[in-house]
Amino acid sequence: MREDTREAVERVDEARLWRRHEEMAQIGAIPGNGVNRAAFSGEDIRARRLLLSWAQARQFEVTMDAIGNLFVRRPGLDAGAAPVLSGSHMDSQPRGGRFDGIYGVLAALEALEAIDDAGLKTRRPIELVAWSNEEGGRFGPCTMGSAVHTRARSIDDFADVTDNDGIVLKDALAATLEATPEAGTRELNTPAAGYIEAHIEQGPLLEMQGKTVGVVTGIQGLRWFNVEVFGETAHAGTTPLRVRRDAVRSAISIINALHELTADPDDVLRFTVGRMLVTPNSTNSVASHVLFSVDIRHPDPATIRRLGEAVEPLARKAATPCEVKVTATLHDDPCVFDAGVVDTIQHAADELGVASLRLPSGASHDAMYMSRVCPTGMIFVPYEKGVSHNEAENATPQDLAAGARVLTAALLALANR
Amino acid sequence: MREDTREAVERVDEARLWRRHEEMAQIGAIPGNGVNRAAFSGEDIRARRLLLSWAQARQFEVTMDAIGNLFVRRPGLDAGAAPVLSGSHMDSQPRGGRFDGIYGVLAALEALEAIDDAGLKTRRPIELVAWSNEEGGRFGPCTMGSAVHTRARSIDDFADVTDNDGIVLKDALAATLEATPEAGTRELNTPAAGYIEAHIEQGPLLEMQGKTVGVVTGIQGLRWFNVEVFGETAHAGTTPLRVRRDAVRSAISIINALHELTADPDDVLRFTVGRMLVTPNSTNSVASHVLFSVDIRHPDPATIRRLGEAVEPLARKAATPCEVKVTATLHDDPCVFDAGVVDTIQHAADELGVASLRLPSGASHDAMYMSRVCPTGMIFVPYEKGVSHNEAENATPQDLAAGARVLTAALLALANR
Repeated sequence: MREDTREAVERVDEARLWRRHEEMAQIGAIPGNGVNRAAFSGEDIRARRLLLSWAQARQFEVTMDAIGNLFVRRPGLDAGAAPVLSGSHMDSQPRGGRFDGIYGVLAALEALEAIDDAGLKTRRPIELVAWSNEEGGRFGPCTMGSAVHTRARSIDDFADVTDNDGIVLKDALAATLEATPEAGTRELNTPAAGYIEAHIEQGPLLEMQGKTVGVVTGIQGLRWFNVEVFGETAHAGTTPLRVRRDAVRSAISIINALHELTADPDDVLRFTVGRMLVTPNSTNSVASHVLFSVDIRHPDPATIRRLGEAVEPLARKAATPCEVKVTATLHDDPCVFDAGVVDTIQHAADELGVASLRLPSGASHDAMYMSRVCPTGMIFVPYEKGVSHNEAENATPQDLAAGARVLTAALLALANR
Repeated sequence: MREDTREAVERVDEARLWRRHEEMAQIGAIPGNGVNRAAFSGEDIRARRLLLSWAQARQFEVTMDAIGNLFVRRPGLDAGAAPVLSGSHMDSQPRGGRFDGIYGVLAALEALEAIDDAGLKTRRPIELVAWSNEEGGRFGPCTMGSAVHTRARSIDDFADVTDNDGIVLKDALAATLEATPEAGTRELNTPAAGYIEAHIEQGPLLEMQGKTVGVVTGIQGLRWFNVEVFGETAHAGTTPLRVRRDAVRSAISIINALHELTADPDDVLRFTVGRMLVTPNSTNSVASHVLFSVDIRHPDPATIRRLGEAVEPLARKAATPCEVKVTATLHDDPCVFDAGVVDTIQHAADELGVASLRLPSGASHDAMYMSRVCPTGMIFVPYEKGVSHNEAENATPQDLAAGARVLTAALLALANR
């Protein structure tokens, strides 16, 4: 390891990194130590402004693109060189934890500050990026910010998406952009020399195997669908069952069929119905409409393709006597990270003596879209009991700092290439 | 039929009755000719004020009790005699029709006005009553106003019930009471000499058999439950299914078991899950909590008892690995109406030459609670295709007026007894 890299790694400040997690966790705090920081909400804006204040204290330049992705830049010696990026997201699930996403943002900030404290000059600029709406908990689909930035999707595809309260995405986004007038304008899909995302594992493997850092090899494939069932509302006390078109009953028939389709004795496949909206949602009335979400994930491309294609015909068959509409809202093929970046991260961990494990990611991340436009990798840190998307998420200051040190060393290696 | 009764019946004004339905249907109008007039909402208040204005135009005295039931009184000759009551409710399902409930209120008003127009004096006062929150669509359970008025339930049992937006019943009720300051105070459970409720049938029998009026013999039994499933939220992409405690999955297992329990080849039993609330309700998160409603109805006391008792043990068994809490929110035994009132209604229909059918009610009505405190009966009128709790509800001006004529004659018979 280069001497200047080691100097920067030694400036990684465990206490500062932890303190910043605690400050961020105040924003949208919910009982049980969790956070509810929905994308483009007032809490999201407060988190952005806090990050901005830290960047301004260092006189790092801040820019923002049309979907609200926030970039914090530490300049390089070669002003024309594409930057190396690192970051994650600041939004959370409705009952989310205090580390999911925000750790990757604060670890990148810690790396920038440690490099700054060590007085290092790098060839390429290094930039922190805070992606908008990674969770998709309020406005589906997830990983929206990175999808739009990399031009995998157009912002117009999502402008009219509404949340559960009927608020339209474009309005919430406009309010978010206006709330950070200090940020300069960033074009979409500006060139990047590399991207590394630090994140909590959100699975149990690192903890079970006693490792401090995960060197992530790729991300499993994912299919999201909205299934809408159209029935007819009727009086629950008088309408004979044989003449009903009960949207709840048909939705349950469809979900039963999906459970059969996705049964997996190896427990590799992930199948989730996490969202259900019933109309009119009254004890006394047969439901006229149900919307439910389907989330299917698998690392094998053939398996996920087969399952994805099976959803609509199966729903159509099971919906009788109701009508059904199936909308594919997200489709991510399994992705494999750049071998050079994966090796750089592995090398950094080894040289710093941090115990590591190579593993794929079970969750989607913004790194998936970035991997399509530049060499990309991820660093995982362990957290208690593999519990995530849950306010009980927990991680130790030591593990978070170890991940930030590996990140700092790997970013410097990429930035000096 | 007495000559003065016939004079009053002839004063029943089909056009006036229809016009009043049209005016009421403006309040909370929704697409498709329906109404959404939730109990204790702004729309409910507007309906009350409109009814009040009609009563005041006749100088009928208006009173209101603690749960907001509204009484309109036409005095009798014997000031000390208990009144004969007639009415129904003005609230609706979220996507309700323009006749459910409100017909019984406007038919009673029409009877009072026809009797008034004929200049008749009756021994007993005749009163219109508009019961609060019959539907239970916003604040469960249903038939709340009559349950509280007859002291079958205490108002304290419901004060803290919340709607889907978290609004507390006692606050919405207080606002409703304050909005009708002209109404005098009415004690709960004041003596009544009899009660007749006119209502649309909400089933297909009258239309199928070509009859104009239903002479209702009683009401089937009903059990309502809220089933709450407690799981644990987790990341949909990373958490292996074998370690999940997925509240949606367990809720569906319970509902599947309830479908088996309530399967009825004779199609007499009514089973409905009309309401489901999922937390956190995000595509990306395994659900930590589901609340769903259960509505079971059957005319046979033994059957409804057996089914009601089976719900909780069955839910407990099917909920694994989640926890479950089953709360009985409503329990109405099958009820049989007073033979004297039923005969009075039958006699009135026969004398007026209105084709009638004796039948039980599939739906619950406020008449159920009134039947416990005074001689009670109901009059049904037909409506198109047996569609109810649906904005497509429809009935003809002729049938509505025929029901009001039978009601007028029957009320006069009871009021002169």
